[in-house]
Amino acid sequence: MGDTTVGDISSSDRALVEQVSRVVEQAKELQDLSASLISRTSREEDSLRQRANSLNSSIHSLRSSIRKSNLLLDSTLAEKLEEELFRARYLLNEGDAAAFLPSKSHGRFLRMFLGPINVRANRKDVQLKVKEEYNSFRDRTAYLFLFFPLLLIVLRSWIWNGCLPALPVQLYQAWLLYLYTGLALRENILRVNGSDIRPWWIYHHYFAMAMALISLTWEIERGPDCAQKQKGVLLYLKWAIMQGIAMLLQNRYQRQRLYTRIALGKAGRMDVVWGETAGVEGQLWLLCPILFILQGFEAYVGLLLLKTAFLGVISEWQVITCGILLIIMAVGNFANTVQTLVTKSRVKAKMKKGKSKQELDQGSGKHQ
Amino acid sequence: MGDTTVGDISSSDRALVEQVSRVVEQAKELQDLSASLISRTSREEDSLRQRANSLNSSIHSLRSSIRKSNLLLDSTLAEKLEEELFRARYLLNEGDAAAFLPSKSHGRFLRMFLGPINVRANRKDVQLKVKEEYNSFRDRTAYLFLFFPLLLIVLRSWIWNGCLPALPVQLYQAWLLYLYTGLALRENILRVNGSDIRPWWIYHHYFAMAMALISLTWEIERGPDCAQKQKGVLLYLKWAIMQGIAMLLQNRYQRQRLYTRIALGKAGRMDVVWGETAGVEGQLWLLCPILFILQGFEAYVGLLLLKTAFLGVISEWQVITCGILLIIMAVGNFANTVQTLVTKSRVKAKMKKGKSKQELDQGSGKHQ
Repeated sequence: MGDTTVGDISSSDRALVEQVSRVVEQAKELQDLSASLISRTSREEDSLRQRANSLNSSIHSLRSSIRKSNLLLDSTLAEKLEEELFRARYLLNEGDAAAFLPSKSHGRFLRMFLGPINVRANRKDVQLKVKEEYNSFRDRTAYLFLFFPLLLIVLRSWIWNGCLPALPVQLYQAWLLYLYTGLALRENILRVNGSDIRPWWIYHHYFAMAMALISLTWEIERGPDCAQKQKGVLLYLKWAIMQGIAMLLQNRYQRQRLYTRIALGKAGRMDVVWGETAGVEGQLWLLCPILFILQGFEAYVGLLLLKTAFLGVISEWQVITCGILLIIMAVGNFANTVQTLVTKSRVKAKMKKGKSKQELDQGSGKHQ
Repeated sequence: MGDTTVGDISSSDRALVEQVSRVVEQAKELQDLSASLISRTSREEDSLRQRANSLNSSIHSLRSSIRKSNLLLDSTLAEKLEEELFRARYLLNEGDAAAFLPSKSHGRFLRMFLGPINVRANRKDVQLKVKEEYNSFRDRTAYLFLFFPLLLIVLRSWIWNGCLPALPVQLYQAWLLYLYTGLALRENILRVNGSDIRPWWIYHHYFAMAMALISLTWEIERGPDCAQKQKGVLLYLKWAIMQGIAMLLQNRYQRQRLYTRIALGKAGRMDVVWGETAGVEGQLWLLCPILFILQGFEAYVGLLLLKTAFLGVISEWQVITCGILLIIMAVGNFANTVQTLVTKSRVKAKMKKGKSKQELDQGSGKHQ
């Protein structure tokens, strides 16, 4: 292409013409290389995807046929086979092949906010980075979760003479709205990336988002009956402080526990044990009472809000809705904590009776 | 592994043992294949990334050296070279190689909400799906943007006797908050995927998010002085109706215009011309007056809000802040519209003078 209608051009111009035609050639070549790499890769990925899928289903069917013939098989043999299957499963789910297993659907919430963009990381190290960042986000926010309501309560009695002004409380509520939206988005992203986070904790954050949004429309007036009107806000702030402490304890214990579980090969590294699910064995005796007190207090605040609404002190719809939401969250949290404890104690009982085999069942059963 | 401590097992058991050991083998094999595909692909991608980068920079330096030697070069030759470079650039930016060009940074907003997850689609068809979905999201919301305030205004005079109740207005404001958050997230994602959306339109949505959040905390009381107090809300609703009409017109015209530009090879297919930037040539004479009236009305509403605040009718901080935000948005929108028109007329003038070469300059200049 350099050799077009060129009469007597200087040597520097000729060099320019040559460079341009070289660049055009390079662009075409790069386009071809890219297109072939992309199509080749997607072809190979498709074939791996098929193999991963069929392997996954044969592991499933083998496990159920071993379980069915459990009585006929020699128990040490059955145990051995289950262990081998568990290892195959683990390799498939936690190794590089996991990228080719079908991902969980993105879900309505992510589509609502982000559209149809893919948020699944193909490479395990990227997935782990996402998980780590989620943990550190939780840590950072737990401190703020403790700090903001504490500050509001201190300033209330120190500067504001027992009556909170609207703006700081609303800033806090806006922060809560951002926090819960961010957590819900991140947890949905983790779920797509293979974490087995309990659905309840995501729903819990949807409810919390709704409550933060509603509380923003709640009038916080300063007036003669301020102390009476702000009773609900104050109770909520106290509950938030307790929640902050519990979050810090949970984050610490659950991360330890997660590392233990990873080391034992029982959990995928993308698992998140948000909220009141699990703690390190010994520390559970510290965590559990705190969690139950917290849930009781949450329900109590909810009931108090309903009471003030029905006694006519404050008859705004926001009070009633927030009361109901708090009670729903308290009950849901309680049910999920109890469920986890029951599962735990069952695992323990089985472990005493039947050694490691049953534990493996449990571990991989949770995985699905 | 099937041949472990097995004494006299039945043939069906033996089949089971064999199947399990086959599955284990398959899992190992799949792991190896996946690991090698992933590492091979990422190696090849890295090499393409390097080539794309160096090609990109040589196109840049060649363009500037052609421009510098513009006076020395024969003008038809220079034009030809520029055209060839433009084609190379287009191939690089719009072809499959674009996946290997460095992506724009994700930006603080996306990291705040989503963490460090990658939202860049590697394949062009996926990117286009994202773009298409964004357009249809904009269409859907434009109708709602028109419908909600219209409904509120109609119901106000029809059922509510000239005085809006708080809840419907707050639901509308919460919807606005969701809408602007969704738009800001989607536009940031488009930017990462190579769209050259003007930064102002993203900032515009940040301001709009802030305003929706603030307006949620705004007290909308029913009372004897309701009509006086709700003047600002009513003005805002009327502005929103106009905005809805303008959005519908813009969406239609800009999509047509985008398709024209794509056909001309002037714009990347990921370009978004949000807001008041560009319209189809002839229809611009319809769109421009509407846009300027809209911006004037926006500033007027902002000034009215400030006036009511300073006259002491309503002295809440929300009124002042919303007033200031509206004025900032009006001025920013105006400046960006004028800037676009100036660019347009310059392109036209150049086209009259210097044919297609200048236009290509302009088209690709916008691209950066």
